[in-house]
Order: sequence, then structure tokens, then C-alpha cells
Amino acid sequence: MPTHLELELEAIKSKIFEMADLAIEAISKSVESLKKSDTTLAQSVIDGDSLLDQLEITIDDECIRVLVTRQPAATHLRLVLAILKINTDLERIGDLATNIAKETVRLQGQPTLKPLIDIPRMAEIGIEMIKDALRAITEMDPVIAEKVIERDNEIDELNIQIYRELFSYMAENPKSISQALGLIMIAKVLERIGDHATNIAERAIYYVNGVDVRHSDD
Amino acid sequence: MPTHLELELEAIKSKIFEMADLAIEAISKSVESLKKSDTTLAQSVIDGDSLLDQLEITIDDECIRVLVTRQPAATHLRLVLAILKINTDLERIGDLATNIAKETVRLQGQPTLKPLIDIPRMAEIGIEMIKDALRAITEMDPVIAEKVIERDNEIDELNIQIYRELFSYMAENPKSISQALGLIMIAKVLERIGDHATNIAERAIYYVNGVDVRHSDD
Repeated sequence: MPTHLELELEAIKSKIFEMADLAIEAISKSVESLKKSDTTLAQSVIDGDSLLDQLEITIDDECIRVLVTRQPAATHLRLVLAILKINTDLERIGDLATNIAKETVRLQGQPTLKPLIDIPRMAEIGIEMIKDALRAITEMDPVIAEKVIERDNEIDELNIQIYRELFSYMAENPKSISQALGLIMIAKVLERIGDHATNIAERAIYYVNGVDVRHSDD
Repeated sequence: MPTHLELELEAIKSKIFEMADLAIEAISKSVESLKKSDTTLAQSVIDGDSLLDQLEITIDDECIRVLVTRQPAATHLRLVLAILKINTDLERIGDLATNIAKETVRLQGQPTLKPLIDIPRMAEIGIEMIKDALRAITEMDPVIAEKVIERDNEIDELNIQIYRELFSYMAENPKSISQALGLIMIAKVLERIGDHATNIAERAIYYVNGVDVRHSDD
């Protein structure tokens, strides 16, 4: 039979998965709103962010309560500490999706430079990274998490590529500056979402192995 | 006589202040390197970031050790939890200063659009915010922290102003695009440093009052 502590940890885990689902949905909807110039969808991302904010506070509170009342040790303690940090990353991912949605609202009505391919691809990779980082926790498999960390390069390279391409657009056609600048900002936001997914993967490895892999390849 | 726990908390506090000093120095040097087009100084910021990375891991480890071995309660527990989160913010601030330094290296040799005034001003405000947020912890004074949170608007407004100004530069003179884009990115980075300083102030209020003020005005 599971202990009180184990039951409480399961409850916290399911809340952090709920938080991840909301963050992923926010990324996906914000990029969809950009592709379709759909300001109503963009506004729903902006309005929905308060849900993530509330959930962040709830999860922090529950982690603290478990720390105080159950005094977990070893793997259980590492899980609580990992979740405390993952929680911050997911809330930040929600904020970043909101930034994309706000840029969509700002860009609305401006001519599309070209069909968006690389930006949705960056979002896709970011979402896969978040999902896999959390799967590494459920399956307690550090190899999955290591693969997430490696994929951050894919996002970084797409960001550089998008920057170069839009830079040329601006130089050739000053009328495109406003939109190109918006897309450069959005690519940068997605690159940061990749950084946060990497953080989550690092916390997953810490939880499973007890090893802190942050900055190990700096 | 102070208890073991109190002595250990003092040691952790002095490490987090050391971390803050390093982060502040990184911001200050990176903006100085930009002003003077000094790539050697910029490189020293980039190289120095590993110190912050190492200190982050040390502080996290010591917080965890205190949680496990001393099982702190009430104010003491809140201090450890606040420091665990502040630690992440300060490490991120160090990364952001590195981004400014990298942009300085990239921009080197390009003509200056005009003397830099607003960007150094943003850096100054950011540094004052970080210092005051930590002073709120030492003096256990939530009013200082509340003022820090209010000041985030100043940085946000400077960022918007810089964006508008550089946007006009680009539209008028496509040759300025590369440098203007670099400065827009740097202003955005400083705006994010303000966000992290705000986070630190919120954690200070949580530590002193036990009240979570995150997202309370959303």
C-alpha cells in the first residue's frame, strides 16, 4: 500500500503534468494564432495565462507542505525539489507563449512575408522536448532526458537561420521591418522555450540519478 | 548563541549575496563593454559566467543539505525556499549579461548610431532593483521589496521607447539595421533582467511576510 507521502507526491506529480499540458497548449495556440492571424485565439492565450500563474502557486504550496509535514528523503526529496524548479520553468514557458500571442495581436493586418515554416517547426520541437522531459520523470529514464538536452541545438540553429533570413528581408525591403522584427522576436522566444525545456530535462536527471548535470558541458 | 541552523543559514545568505555581486558585476561590465566597444571586457564577462554557474550548484546543494539535516520551520524554511528560487534568478541574470557581451562582440567595429544613454540607464535601474531586493531580505523589510516591484515599469517603458527609436532608425537607414537590431535585443535582455529582479523582490516578500505576492496584480 502506498504511504501518505507517496500519495501526496502522486497528487503533486499529476498537478505538474496538468501545468505542462497548459503550457504546451499555450505554445501551440499562440503559434497557431500567428499562422492564421487569429487575434481571438491569441487573446485566449493571453487570458488563459492566469490559470498557469495560479497553478504555479498551488504546486509550490503543496511542495512546501510536503517538505514540512512529511520530511521526505532521497528520491522523494529530489522529486519535490525538482518539481519546485520545474514549476518555475513551466510558468515562464506560459509567459513566453503569451509574448508570442501579444506579438500576433500587434502584427495583425500586416502582410505576411512568406508562409511560416521554421517558426511552427521550432514550436513543435519545443513541445516535444517538454513532453519528453516529463516522460523522463514518469519512466524514471535519464536517457530520454539526455536526448531532450541534445535537441536544444536544433532549436538554436533554426533561430539563427530565421534571424539571417529575416535580416535579409529587412535590408532589401524596409517596409518589411515591422513584421520581420516581430518574427525575429518570436523565434527568440521559442529559443528560450527550448532553454526552459532543457532545464526541465536537467531537473529530471537530477531526480532520477541524483546527479546535477547543469552546466556540465560549459 | 546562534544555533547550528542559524549559522548555516548565515553562510548560505552570504553565498547568495556573493552570487548577486557577481551577477551585478556581469551586467555592469557587459554594458560598459558595449559602450566602449571593448571586446576584451565583453569576453571577460563571457568567461566569468562559469563562476556563477558553479556557485548556483553549490548554493542549491547547501539549501538541500540544510532542508534534510536541520528540517527548518517557519521563517527559516521560507528563507531556504526563497534562496532556492532566487538562486535560479541570479544564474539567469548572469546568462543574460553574457548575451549582452556576445552582442557586443558581434557588433564590434560597426558604427555607433548615437551615444548610448537609455540602455546604460536600463542597466542601472536593473542593478539598483537587484540590490534593493536583497536589502529587503537583510533588513527583513517588505516595503523595500514592494518598491522594487513598482520600478519594473520604468525598465519596461525605457524598453518600449528604445524599440520605437531604433525602429525609426532602421526604416530611415537600412545600413543601420544590423546595429539597431543588436541594440533592440540588448534592451529586451535588460527588460528581462528587470523581470528577474522583480521575481527576487517577490521572493523577499514571501520570506519576510510568508505571503506569496506573485501574480497578485495580474
